[in-house]
Amino acid sequence: MTINIMFSAGAARWAEYETHLRLSLEDMGLDYRLDLDLGPPDAVDYVIYAPNSALQDFTPYIRCKAVLNLWAGVEEVVDNPTLTQPLARMVDDGLTQGMVEWVTGHVLRHHLGMDAQIRKEGDWNALRIVPPLASQRRVTILGLGALGATVGQALAGLGFDVVGWSRSAKHVSGVTCLFGTDGLQEALSGGQILVLLLPQTSKTENLLDATRLAQMPKGAVVINPGRGPLINDEALLAALDSDHLDHATLDVFWVEPLPNDHVFWTHPKVTVTPHIASETRANTASHVIAENIRRGEAGEPFLHLVDRQTGY
Amino acid sequence: MTINIMFSAGAARWAEYETHLRLSLEDMGLDYRLDLDLGPPDAVDYVIYAPNSALQDFTPYIRCKAVLNLWAGVEEVVDNPTLTQPLARMVDDGLTQGMVEWVTGHVLRHHLGMDAQIRKEGDWNALRIVPPLASQRRVTILGLGALGATVGQALAGLGFDVVGWSRSAKHVSGVTCLFGTDGLQEALSGGQILVLLLPQTSKTENLLDATRLAQMPKGAVVINPGRGPLINDEALLAALDSDHLDHATLDVFWVEPLPNDHVFWTHPKVTVTPHIASETRANTASHVIAENIRRGEAGEPFLHLVDRQTGY
Repeated sequence: MTINIMFSAGAARWAEYETHLRLSLEDMGLDYRLDLDLGPPDAVDYVIYAPNSALQDFTPYIRCKAVLNLWAGVEEVVDNPTLTQPLARMVDDGLTQGMVEWVTGHVLRHHLGMDAQIRKEGDWNALRIVPPLASQRRVTILGLGALGATVGQALAGLGFDVVGWSRSAKHVSGVTCLFGTDGLQEALSGGQILVLLLPQTSKTENLLDATRLAQMPKGAVVINPGRGPLINDEALLAALDSDHLDHATLDVFWVEPLPNDHVFWTHPKVTVTPHIASETRANTASHVIAENIRRGEAGEPFLHLVDRQTGY
Repeated sequence: MTINIMFSAGAARWAEYETHLRLSLEDMGLDYRLDLDLGPPDAVDYVIYAPNSALQDFTPYIRCKAVLNLWAGVEEVVDNPTLTQPLARMVDDGLTQGMVEWVTGHVLRHHLGMDAQIRKEGDWNALRIVPPLASQRRVTILGLGALGATVGQALAGLGFDVVGWSRSAKHVSGVTCLFGTDGLQEALSGGQILVLLLPQTSKTENLLDATRLAQMPKGAVVINPGRGPLINDEALLAALDSDHLDHATLDVFWVEPLPNDHVFWTHPKVTVTPHIASETRANTASHVIAENIRRGEAGEPFLHLVDRQTGY
């Protein structure tokens, strides 16, 4: 029987994804129909979804076996009370690899003190500051999911002293893993470079507030490629302005796009990157979507199902 | 019998090295005297050397078993006709690791297009350029000695498509190795990011001249942490000004320190770093020096001996 797959992630993304999705679905040998509109909701077997889509009421999709999110973050859909179908997050090798490259690049940028050189702030002698080796630099990563763990291993592979923290105990090779509330204070207090890769949930919103920023060592740097609301922006600005923190490199924000008049755009100790740390790549992500549809049809468990209690 | 070791690498470096050298020599169980001045030259068994030292005439050091260079580069000493003693280069794990960090950082900086973001050249949409994955970015490394090979493996480990070139055939895992004159043209023509890690010899001076720069793809970037004279500066500036090349990040120069009035300081497509890509680290380098003295005393072959024909 033909599988009806609705693409509900916007027309722009449809242009980017259609070919890749068809190739991946055909690779799986599936008999399918794929379109932006498949007629009556009760004919739809799977929804490929992005949280900013027009589809917000899942009630009429009574036959739908799974909602397959194109993004890693599900905070904008997980609390939708009409969404009773299984929900899967995207865990895309391309997205993970892109995140590793972005974080490693910005960690090395801060580790090496590149900004003064790129901006030519000084002469030969003024710029001649030899950094310590990576083994003398502690990087703390909050969040040890697929992204945090892979980033931690890449940084450890380059020689950094990497500490990771997660809500519950984890093991990641090459990374000193801490957990729980006590572990968080220890993780924050040691990290000269802090990387935020937590999911956004009610428990992680404003996690980095004035109290926790004060636990970080003086001169530390915050790198946030996770989610904007992990940080209390007012507390962050106060920590930067008081010279407690040296810099913040932010890829994600409470409001995106970051408004043109936001103080982050002009603050000398803030670097803004416009949510590019990690993009789902159409070719690798399409393979993940198709694999989950194959699993649904074969009665196998879905990959990357969201736990509706924890929210990720 | 007591081994007489003369430190001829400057008083400033003496302050940095003395303790580390003594610790390493004692670790080896050697009976030694170590000082800036040991009296008559014919009493000296080993010279620890830096090429900018006052010692330029090695003729009276008739008992000296080896000259142990503190730096990786030996171009300023290898052609000294009075130096008939064995000459060893520094191959220091700390120096290699520092080089890996510097090169990886600047390769990722150019790969990710960080400069526009650090300088805030544009708004959200203007800055929103998602780079390809590292696997879609070819990095070419000229020189596959200890530094080039280790840098190549680190970049390959991060997913870059790495091509390496050396004068004679080499094998480096994860790196596509080319060699010889034909290989050089192939290496240059494919690399969007070019890293220079060749030694400075009569054959490598001005290697990157107008002809070879023209073989590089349009929009390529040059990163030079090797030696300044590998590049013909006039040809490089012409390639930047004609928009054939996008950027040059230079750590080494024909004249160091780079004079304050040099055009590189103000050129918008040139980044200057003041010879910090790789510094010999006193603790790890002292161990290498002590190990070579132990070998000399035990009649074992020295490590990292310079081939006086090839000059490295």
